[in-house]
Amino acid sequence: MVYLDNASTTYPKPENVYIEMDRCLREYCANPGRGGHAMSRAAAEAVGKTREALARFFNFEYPERIVFTKNATEALNIAIKGTLQPGDHVITTMLEHNSVVRPLKDLEKEHGIEITFIEGDEYGEVASDTVAAHVRNNTRLIACTLSSNVNGIIMPVGEIGSVAERYGVPFLVDASQGAGSIDLDMKAMKITLLAFPGHKGLLGPQGTGGLCVDQAVELRPLMQGGTGTASENTYQPRVMPEALESGTLNTPGIIGLGEGIAFIDRTGRQTIADHKQHLTARMHQELSGHPKIHVYSMNDSGKNSGIVAINIEDMLSTQVSKALDERYGIATRAGLHCAPFAHKALGYAVDGGILRFSVGYFNTPDEIDYTVRAVQEIAG
Amino acid sequence: MVYLDNASTTYPKPENVYIEMDRCLREYCANPGRGGHAMSRAAAEAVGKTREALARFFNFEYPERIVFTKNATEALNIAIKGTLQPGDHVITTMLEHNSVVRPLKDLEKEHGIEITFIEGDEYGEVASDTVAAHVRNNTRLIACTLSSNVNGIIMPVGEIGSVAERYGVPFLVDASQGAGSIDLDMKAMKITLLAFPGHKGLLGPQGTGGLCVDQAVELRPLMQGGTGTASENTYQPRVMPEALESGTLNTPGIIGLGEGIAFIDRTGRQTIADHKQHLTARMHQELSGHPKIHVYSMNDSGKNSGIVAINIEDMLSTQVSKALDERYGIATRAGLHCAPFAHKALGYAVDGGILRFSVGYFNTPDEIDYTVRAVQEIAG
Repeated sequence: MVYLDNASTTYPKPENVYIEMDRCLREYCANPGRGGHAMSRAAAEAVGKTREALARFFNFEYPERIVFTKNATEALNIAIKGTLQPGDHVITTMLEHNSVVRPLKDLEKEHGIEITFIEGDEYGEVASDTVAAHVRNNTRLIACTLSSNVNGIIMPVGEIGSVAERYGVPFLVDASQGAGSIDLDMKAMKITLLAFPGHKGLLGPQGTGGLCVDQAVELRPLMQGGTGTASENTYQPRVMPEALESGTLNTPGIIGLGEGIAFIDRTGRQTIADHKQHLTARMHQELSGHPKIHVYSMNDSGKNSGIVAINIEDMLSTQVSKALDERYGIATRAGLHCAPFAHKALGYAVDGGILRFSVGYFNTPDEIDYTVRAVQEIAG
Repeated sequence: MVYLDNASTTYPKPENVYIEMDRCLREYCANPGRGGHAMSRAAAEAVGKTREALARFFNFEYPERIVFTKNATEALNIAIKGTLQPGDHVITTMLEHNSVVRPLKDLEKEHGIEITFIEGDEYGEVASDTVAAHVRNNTRLIACTLSSNVNGIIMPVGEIGSVAERYGVPFLVDASQGAGSIDLDMKAMKITLLAFPGHKGLLGPQGTGGLCVDQAVELRPLMQGGTGTASENTYQPRVMPEALESGTLNTPGIIGLGEGIAFIDRTGRQTIADHKQHLTARMHQELSGHPKIHVYSMNDSGKNSGIVAINIEDMLSTQVSKALDERYGIATRAGLHCAPFAHKALGYAVDGGILRFSVGYFNTPDEIDYTVRAVQEIAG
């Protein structure tokens, strides 16, 4: 099998992720921070190390303000609903995933917030000046994807961060696509809320994700519950990270995520980025030449997180994906990719969606060549 | 090490849980329901099997209405916040965990709901007649723990379910303590909302839990996001389970939970219950005889989910727990156990909390005898 669905979840994971998750489950998987015994402390310590590794990785000063969630969607919901109040205005982009669009549309409908969706260029890239031009007196959040899950376009988050800082508006980045290979520096990029999945570019397992909450931002919790702290308090404590982390954590998953980060640190983020960019460019170049193939991704290594989005003339993306799966054993994703406005923004028919190839660090040039030949055969 | 903190999280898990989680991670851990390829379908099928196993296990008719969550706390928040509106009244008990108390107190403060906390007998057991007596015209939820995480007392949920059905009020059971060994029959017990953790008595890994939502109940989602369905819809779809399951699921965790259920099915729920009851009774009997030891749990096998809660005269529970850990290698939990009203209800000083021994299926009689001797030595 050739796995080119890494934007959904990366596969495989590094060997050390498998090994340490199994060791955690077998040897020290007590409830971290709940019992006072040695195994509980060992679990808590391992969870704390992952927090610290993430803080270093994102150049974030406050490991105790990194909240573990089940996925990026939960992190985005906490950030969005914990910030916005009725009457507030939010600026976001046309390329956002439903994990940003749907919470915002819900708040618009139920609580009267106002949303501005910024259009980008032909690839969906948004200009920071356009963002600045839409800031109002009641703008309380700027939310932007790090890179599109549809065509891989990387947004100028550093420039948008400067706009957010200038106007004193919290800046939420959805790092679902790109964290792990794109350089993410919360301090330099003025990111105040960073939502990330653990199971994509960070190479951890599914069931993990998180939210980095800058000290300048206080969020209303989405959930309340046991925190293992201040048990006599019938209200949610405000101490971080427990304030936003009710109930038992996914200890083995978080340990796996820590191992994913350790692998990236050992390998080098730039090495991973270079490899992905090499494979993406190779595929882009080969497919672009075909008269029946339309490519919707950019062939600029600095502006593509590792996605080649295409359509073959007169074929539905789902048809092509099915043929690749059944006849060639190639795993891809077709359709709308949970990004309702992206398809309109990128200027092609919504009905059929697009076919997405998303590369990962463990893909090889041979796999790319094999896939290119398969697509060419299908296109005829 | 002797692990007697199974009410926090069970340890160890059955061998098949470790093996299948590792196999899932290595061999078929694609994103379930997102890609159209073979590995994605394999992941989705395995997740679906766990849903079906849980439905059978709880005698629940609608597997597609079982929503996977990261823990029981999330399930309880979804149930409570998805049901109650401003002005509604809820009936609950003094023995609830903060995962029920804190969401309710937040709704009381922010949205003006009314809460009745029912007192029980000396062990905290609530009478269904008392519940019935507190039902009002605006009662919209009855929420009750299956058994206390402090002293193990089992609540008469079947009888309370009949009251709820008689008055047409949704009935939420927090099965955090007892699911896996106590018989839970949603149909017979008239339970309309069942919240459960995956990592306690169901023997799955941390990072799992769920909520069974009866067909008669429609919940407002706590979170919105990508569901892999109806991507063009910028509002959350209402189809279950996706309506309440935004973002990527914890596939390896859910597979592990399925293996936990499979182990219980093979072993026999009653066999597990009998073993736990035998160990609990043995410990209860030995410790009750000591003049300096106060036991707060009931010695009735039908009314104790597997907890022996004690204090030693003139010692803080945390002191005893520390001595057991450091001098004997026995893992317990001390303090307030995230149950703020339970300690008042059970009639002892809140300051020191209690020391909790919680047994699991993998504990042995020898471990219990060793622990009893250790406690006797500490008590003097």
